[in-house]
Amino acid sequence: MRHTYREVEQCATKVALNLISGKWKPIIFFHLSSGAMRFTELWREIPRVSKKVLLEQLRQLESAGLVERTVQNGFPPEVTYQLTHKGAELAPILYRLDQWAMRHIEGVVQIS
Amino acid sequence: MRHTYREVEQCATKVALNLISGKWKPIIFFHLSSGAMRFTELWREIPRVSKKVLLEQLRQLESAGLVERTVQNGFPPEVTYQLTHKGAELAPILYRLDQWAMRHIEGVVQIS
Repeated sequence: MRHTYREVEQCATKVALNLISGKWKPIIFFHLSSGAMRFTELWREIPRVSKKVLLEQLRQLESAGLVERTVQNGFPPEVTYQLTHKGAELAPILYRLDQWAMRHIEGVVQIS
Repeated sequence: MRHTYREVEQCATKVALNLISGKWKPIIFFHLSSGAMRFTELWREIPRVSKKVLLEQLRQLESAGLVERTVQNGFPPEVTYQLTHKGAELAPILYRLDQWAMRHIEGVVQIS
């Protein structure tokens, strides 16, 4: 039986795709899925991204409720990022998408 | 242990996100995941899309190898669309993304 379509679901998928489609967002997810990371540590792991741009992407993920930022008092204060519960539930879906793409998209190595 | 990151994977996820981020692509996937459909049948199921735009989105999905188009001789000839093997493997991932969004994105009903 063909299931009926609810418009709201179309919206939900599009909203989700928009949330994760930022240039560096999949790679941020990839790294944070292993646990919390300090900002500088995350920045060093991601090639060719400026601190400014990385911070912007993290702020967007934070305001979408996917990532949370923690400041630990100290000198200097330590800023760490980790996935929220909502973000952590998204990580395995992105991982499956990645695995699908690795199996099926030809010439993916050439794309910069 | 934190896993190492391969740049190619970042590319793969981004390519995959681009493939499915078209305005009507998630809803096309939703409908075709139940089986092949005639063009006009698909068009009637999707609210507010012109035939021209639907055809464009289908062509993009076709050239990405996610959808295949079959013409059955007859009068008039019948054009049907269905997911390829590659597209069919993507459908459950999109479904999980949709379920995630329905659980987590507040106010999704208001987004048009």
